[in-house]
Amino acid sequence: MLVKAASQSLAEQLAGRFAERIRSRLLAPGTRLPSVRQCAQQQGVSPSTVVAAYDRLLAQGLVEAQRNRGFYIRNQALDQVKQAQEAIYSIASDRLSEAAVAAPGLAHVPVDATALIRGMFRSSSGQPQPGMGAFPPDWLHSTFMSAAVRRFCSGAQLQALSLEYGAPAGDASLRQALAGRLKALGIAATAQQVITTVGATHALDIISRTLLRPGDFVLVEEPGWAVEFARLDALGMRILPVPRGPDGPDLAVMARYCELHQPKLFVSVSVFHNPTGYCLSPASAHRLLQLAQQHDFYVVEDDTYSHLAPDHATRLCALDGLQRSIYVSGFAKILAPGWRVGFLAAPTAWFERLLDTKLLGTLTTPALFEKALAWCIDQGQLRRHAQQLRARLNQARSRSVQLALEAGCSFAAPPAGLFGWVDTGVDTEQLAQRMLDVGYLLAPGALFHANHAPSTLMRINFCTTQEAAFWQVFAAMKREV
Amino acid sequence: MLVKAASQSLAEQLAGRFAERIRSRLLAPGTRLPSVRQCAQQQGVSPSTVVAAYDRLLAQGLVEAQRNRGFYIRNQALDQVKQAQEAIYSIASDRLSEAAVAAPGLAHVPVDATALIRGMFRSSSGQPQPGMGAFPPDWLHSTFMSAAVRRFCSGAQLQALSLEYGAPAGDASLRQALAGRLKALGIAATAQQVITTVGATHALDIISRTLLRPGDFVLVEEPGWAVEFARLDALGMRILPVPRGPDGPDLAVMARYCELHQPKLFVSVSVFHNPTGYCLSPASAHRLLQLAQQHDFYVVEDDTYSHLAPDHATRLCALDGLQRSIYVSGFAKILAPGWRVGFLAAPTAWFERLLDTKLLGTLTTPALFEKALAWCIDQGQLRRHAQQLRARLNQARSRSVQLALEAGCSFAAPPAGLFGWVDTGVDTEQLAQRMLDVGYLLAPGALFHANHAPSTLMRINFCTTQEAAFWQVFAAMKREV
Repeated sequence: MLVKAASQSLAEQLAGRFAERIRSRLLAPGTRLPSVRQCAQQQGVSPSTVVAAYDRLLAQGLVEAQRNRGFYIRNQALDQVKQAQEAIYSIASDRLSEAAVAAPGLAHVPVDATALIRGMFRSSSGQPQPGMGAFPPDWLHSTFMSAAVRRFCSGAQLQALSLEYGAPAGDASLRQALAGRLKALGIAATAQQVITTVGATHALDIISRTLLRPGDFVLVEEPGWAVEFARLDALGMRILPVPRGPDGPDLAVMARYCELHQPKLFVSVSVFHNPTGYCLSPASAHRLLQLAQQHDFYVVEDDTYSHLAPDHATRLCALDGLQRSIYVSGFAKILAPGWRVGFLAAPTAWFERLLDTKLLGTLTTPALFEKALAWCIDQGQLRRHAQQLRARLNQARSRSVQLALEAGCSFAAPPAGLFGWVDTGVDTEQLAQRMLDVGYLLAPGALFHANHAPSTLMRINFCTTQEAAFWQVFAAMKREV
Repeated sequence: MLVKAASQSLAEQLAGRFAERIRSRLLAPGTRLPSVRQCAQQQGVSPSTVVAAYDRLLAQGLVEAQRNRGFYIRNQALDQVKQAQEAIYSIASDRLSEAAVAAPGLAHVPVDATALIRGMFRSSSGQPQPGMGAFPPDWLHSTFMSAAVRRFCSGAQLQALSLEYGAPAGDASLRQALAGRLKALGIAATAQQVITTVGATHALDIISRTLLRPGDFVLVEEPGWAVEFARLDALGMRILPVPRGPDGPDLAVMARYCELHQPKLFVSVSVFHNPTGYCLSPASAHRLLQLAQQHDFYVVEDDTYSHLAPDHATRLCALDGLQRSIYVSGFAKILAPGWRVGFLAAPTAWFERLLDTKLLGTLTTPALFEKALAWCIDQGQLRRHAQQLRARLNQARSRSVQLALEAGCSFAAPPAGLFGWVDTGVDTEQLAQRMLDVGYLLAPGALFHANHAPSTLMRINFCTTQEAAFWQVFAAMKREV
């Protein structure tokens, strides 16, 4: 809120707020600022205050005026780089948009997906953040986690794991523990097929870099996770978005893409899909793998929400036995995002190439947290912790769903897992900007679409949307959009 | 050594040794095994034992016989992958070799650089390893290192840094400490230009992915570090090797490359260049930056050996003020390779794009070791530790040089820093295979050349070549090659 008594004038405060949002790219380059009249009304200030604020932004080079059309956010980074050297840089997505023209059905990926994600790392107002993608830190609190780390912090042990690079494929005890975990999920894999990584994100990156070459076509699910779209885009891949339904991806669309574009890879979140919460059905899984066989593409199963689902949930890798599928998961969602421990399990034939990619990108990964994690798994601590979290999440989901419905929202998918996929009835990108004014970070639907199309949908985190206070503010803002 | 009394037959032992070396790719695909007669003589066994051993390798599919030409190592991984699916995979270097034909002066990068490097992570015989690229673990031993980690391992602190993702650009205290370190080196940079990474390797990877597109030309130093060649190759870049002389890279060659190929980037180890130990002169640095300006390319300064050199050593980034240069360093060489903490400092205009690449590849990096490192720097512990290591290294270097000269070697570059660049007078690839038989890992010269050409040079680590015992075995083997 803007405050009259503050040491800064209202115009300074307003300009400062826009400036911060532009710099952190929560307001994307190319976005139009609200009109002076609209902004004055929204913020409860006079139009002259807004004019003064916009003038400041102009002077700082953060926005540009377009005659008779208003103020637009300038692309700072790009401008500066371009001035510095026209020649070197060209946006990866330029190539994609050419492809989009040449091949109907291809999507253009927003340049600033990463910026929007980056905004989500900001711990802002201290309020629960409805748009966040993880459990709130206090939910993850445990005593066994710290105890596990300290087990490996004695002088001698810490020296041993600090003063050498560590094993290229990762700590042996963790790889063994993970093979056990995979077995429990029905996935036949030995420790020799497992490579540890800097979180699941790194595993997905290693796989893309190893199996694909720039220009290759990749099937992704839509709606889906923007970081995945952005990473593939940055690597020069061409994205084929496949609608994700309650049972799995739309296989008819997938088959058509296969005929037209010979994709090399399909990236899928089968269990508690982000953002819908859908789980793959056994029949869909079977037919999908048949399609992969027939059209000779690989499948990456991103099982990030693994620990929130029962072990018997349908997983592609379990059916396929890691023949043309690669399994990816991590522990950011269930134990400790700050540890950055993830892993992949791959067909033996790909193992050495994947390991080469890991070595070229980071050499090895730090062993301390890998050892601690192995201990948490082996002792059964992680399993018990996951059970408790699931029980608490179930309660939170009931409350959150009730409140969302009361606030006039409907659910585009049956509530399940960590996220709700909610239809608000209004443009959620605009709503997100207004909610930011009062300290709430939302995850608008555009974030989950490869073409960044405006959407009335948004993803909510069931843990952080249990309070009536949020939904009251939300309902009020929704009426204003 | 092969032992008669062992539970395995001599043929089994010999086959086992070859098999392990083939699997870890210390024997590269395409390499010819020694002739039966030659091998029998080298190993002190009968020709029939060698024939039996080679038959085993044939049966295991590890080698193939070529009529009248002997036995060759098969490309395992590639064979398997090809069988699994012809369509997906094609070796990145295929593209390069086309380029090499089209453009004279371009080098072909060996596919198995990473395999050779991976061999270097194996802690093998317990003997000091002359080919290793880092300080031996016992040299890095310190008490302050463990103390620093434990400072951040209290329950509350560990929870705080484990249960959230951490700041995208890295821990604030470390970025501040690094800005201070850069200032001491004469490099004007604020903490806001620093991004922490999973070791210096990750920093170099992030930079390549951000500034370059597949097909771009990149200037590298030759001899140089094979992992850098292999990484650029895997990213689809085209490598232009510039001879590195005592004062710096050959600027005439560089200028010619610029005219022919418009390279986008030059990657340089200015201080204690690997493997020669050369340090850049101020005049070379100045002219190099002029060339960069004139031909509009960026410079990455890989200052991995930073802590072994005086602060006033000439650094490109100090002259340039991070205008068209990016600084990279890490702490694997001086403090703790297992922590995997490195960083980059970049022109402000590139900061956001570089950070995006980090986020897409790994999200954040673990904060524990970053915080511990910041403490080591701020307390002056790291500076004192580096001084002690340098003093000990100086003594080791004297002894090692003396012994190398006595063993009939000469130095291709004046001994300095961690490595000696030694001319043995014989093919060092062959010598390396023989030395592996007796448990010593060498770093043959071919590893440091973009075209992997046979070489009589090798890189020695001064810390691990101080013992007369090694040089006696070496001298004996050298006579046999």
